[in-house]
Formats: sequence, C-alpha cells, structure tokens
Amino acid sequence: MYRLILIRHGESEWNRANRFTGWVDVDLSAQGLGEAIEAGRTLKREGYAPRVAYTSYLKRAIKTLHTVLEEMDLLWIPEHKSWRLNEKHYGMLQGLDKAETAARYGDEQVLLWRRSYDIPPPPIDPDSELSTRRDAKYAGLDPRDVPDTEALKHTIDRIVPYWEQELLPALKAHGEIIISAHGNSLRGIVKYLRNMGEDEIIRFNIPTAIPYIFEFDDAMKLQRDFFLGDPEVVKALMDKVANQAKGK
Amino acid sequence: MYRLILIRHGESEWNRANRFTGWVDVDLSAQGLGEAIEAGRTLKREGYAPRVAYTSYLKRAIKTLHTVLEEMDLLWIPEHKSWRLNEKHYGMLQGLDKAETAARYGDEQVLLWRRSYDIPPPPIDPDSELSTRRDAKYAGLDPRDVPDTEALKHTIDRIVPYWEQELLPALKAHGEIIISAHGNSLRGIVKYLRNMGEDEIIRFNIPTAIPYIFEFDDAMKLQRDFFLGDPEVVKALMDKVANQAKGK
Repeated sequence: MYRLILIRHGESEWNRANRFTGWVDVDLSAQGLGEAIEAGRTLKREGYAPRVAYTSYLKRAIKTLHTVLEEMDLLWIPEHKSWRLNEKHYGMLQGLDKAETAARYGDEQVLLWRRSYDIPPPPIDPDSELSTRRDAKYAGLDPRDVPDTEALKHTIDRIVPYWEQELLPALKAHGEIIISAHGNSLRGIVKYLRNMGEDEIIRFNIPTAIPYIFEFDDAMKLQRDFFLGDPEVVKALMDKVANQAKGK
Repeated sequence: MYRLILIRHGESEWNRANRFTGWVDVDLSAQGLGEAIEAGRTLKREGYAPRVAYTSYLKRAIKTLHTVLEEMDLLWIPEHKSWRLNEKHYGMLQGLDKAETAARYGDEQVLLWRRSYDIPPPPIDPDSELSTRRDAKYAGLDPRDVPDTEALKHTIDRIVPYWEQELLPALKAHGEIIISAHGNSLRGIVKYLRNMGEDEIIRFNIPTAIPYIFEFDDAMKLQRDFFLGDPEVVKALMDKVANQAKGK
C-alpha cells in the first residue's frame, strides 16, 4: 500500500488579520504553530512515517512541515521545496483586508475572484513591494513562470506537472510521502487524484492542519481518502474556511 | 568571491548534562536555540545570504540550521542532509557522563579517546538501544558505512569525499553555502581547507554557534577564514570546549 499525506498549513498571521495572502511570505501565528504540533502528534500516534517531504517556498508551509516532522521525530528525512506548491497568487488582492474588500466590491465579486475556476483577480502592480518579481526567492525562475495573479485553474496547471514528474515518482519509490502546502495548491492535487470537476473542486474546502490521507493499492489505484481527525471538527473547519471571504 | 559558512550547533541537552553524545539524536537546549537565533541575526546583519544549506541527520544540527535560516528569512533555500556530516561516533562512550568517565578511566584515557587522531573508543554494543544499527535513519545505508565507533580520522575520512563530491561543487555553483554540523565533522572540513596536520586539528576547537567564514577567490583559492564574532568571546568559547572532558 502507498500513502500520501497532505497537510494545509495552520493559521497564519494574515489568516488571523483576515487579509488576502497568496504569495506574500507571512508567518504562522502562535495558534498555527500549535495546530501543526497537534497534527504531528496525531500522525505519529496513528503510525505514519513518511520517507520524503515536500513543501512550498513559503514559510507558513515550511514551518508547518518542520513542526510536524519534529513531533514525529522525522526531522532527518529529505525535504524538497518548490514554488509550484505555493498558494494561489491573489494578484492585486494580496495584502488587502478580506472583509473590507467584500464590503467595497461585494461578496459576489470577491467570491468570483477567490473561487471562480478561471477568472483571476486583476494583476498586482509589478512595482508594488508585495510583487513576486521583487522577491529574491523567485529570481532564479524563468520570468514566464512568475505569476502576477492566478485563478485556481492556473494554480492547478502548475501543480499537475509537478505531481506527475516529482511527487508521484517519489510516492512510488518511497511508499509514503508528506506534502505541506496551501489551500489552493493542495486543491490541484485533490482534483487530480479524485478526478473532480471544476465546480466540485471550487466548493471543496480543505481544513487547516488536519492531515488528509490518500491510500493507494499496489497498482497505485486510489483506494480511499480521509481526514485524520474527528469528523465533526473537520466539518466545522471546512465551513469556517468557506465563510472567510464574506463581509461582516 | 566564494563564501562558505560553517556553523557548529548550539548547546544540546547532553552538552548541558555533560554526557557523550556522538550519534545519539539529542535535542538542542533552550540556550542552544538562543545561540542559533543570535548566529542567524549576526549573519543577516553582516550581509550573508547562502543559496543552499547542508546539515547532518541529527536534530541538534538540523534545528540550528532551521533557526539560523528563519532569522535570515532564508527558510526557502534548498536543504540537503547527509549522515556524513554527523558528529564523530563515540562508540561505547555514547550516553556516559563525561566527568564520571574521566574519574573512572582518568583524564588521559578519556582525552585519548576523545582526541587521539586514530584511536577510537571501544565500539558500542550493537544491541544497545543507543546503537546506530537500531536507528531507522540509517536503515537505508550500506551496513559497512554505519559505524559502531570512530576516531577523528574515521570521521574525517567520511567527510572528505562528501566535501569533494557535493559541497565543493555546490560552493562553485552557488557562490555561498552554509553547513550546520558538529565539532568533529566540521574539523574534517577545516583540516582539509587549511591543510592542517593531525596534531594541529586535534587541538583546534570550534566554538558553538559562532559562524565560521571561509572566503575563496575566483580560482577557489582560500583567501582567509575567521569567526564572525567578538574575538574575546570566541577565545573563551574555544577554551570552554577544550576543558569539557576534564574531571571535576
């Protein structure tokens, strides 16, 4: 049997402040660190032992991974980072308050920017200090790969080749891997593995810091997927994410 | 110019308890974490920016690295781990109290085991729960590579090929790299780069958590090496390491 562990980072400082984050490299909050500790303990207690770890270029996912692995006593396993696992780029919304944005543009427009499959928010000003083009992390990339905004479709389009060329071969080679990433980059993997339609993946909310397990048989056929946690807690967390962009 | 940053992990719980550690995977103490934070801040203030990071399989070096990189806002750089950067294996001394061991066997015998170039301590019992052969980290290695004890010579013998095949090419390719490791594995790199004799490297003590910088010219010829810190503090730390194995 093959096992894939997905984990969405815990609460960040901008989740807490209710601001759009995207590729802005915001830290975990104290609560987010606590959520990661809890996830690591759960994985250890349930007997998981990934052999290789993957994460994004963003510290909220990297620190979630390190915290989980420390709790599992697996800090020593190999770790690979890729910009392809980064959150969806939120364009000009990056840095804005979610409730204010909803009040100004209306819930419907914000929900469209956040959740339409292929309509991205307007691009971020390349001269903005939050522009990805000014960030040393991405200086080595082909400039055509560096986004100024993304719809979910674009995020998924950059994840799928990484899944096919890196993650799936690693899962086959090692039997068990862990990926610490973001709500929308993980959606790309979930959509691919569960063969979801566009409407279905848009409505599918991944709770933060709850390990999401995929089990495959020896022929790499998906057998089942489940969240490693109390079903009622998982449901409440999924609803919380869904409600985050609504104005107050 | 090329820049190499070496950093020896900060105080571990067994440094604090004055026990021989070797390949036992002991955590950093709170003080050790604080030392790593300080080292990261110093490196950032002085304008260092490594592009790739290397560390051992042991959490005291891994956590030192992660802490340093977090302070430098460089958690996103690629990170590679190797057992070849592990501390010297202390054989049957692993887990023993240093002062008690000195009282029992005498300062001279302990100093010989700790510091003779090619006489290792007696091997650890392979059935001991501290034996490397029972540790999942090393299950994938060729059993001939897994030590039951080491003299400094053996530690250096396993570091040099890693320097030549991995670290030096990375330094050439990226211009600046950081290695977070251990007193004796770092000695291997220092001996090689400074072309030291056996007697000289045995007496050379690397202080904990003080960045040790090597600068090379464009032809990769070593120009200078220095500790990034107050010279008097560095001297005091080096003396402290030298005195650690003496009985009270």
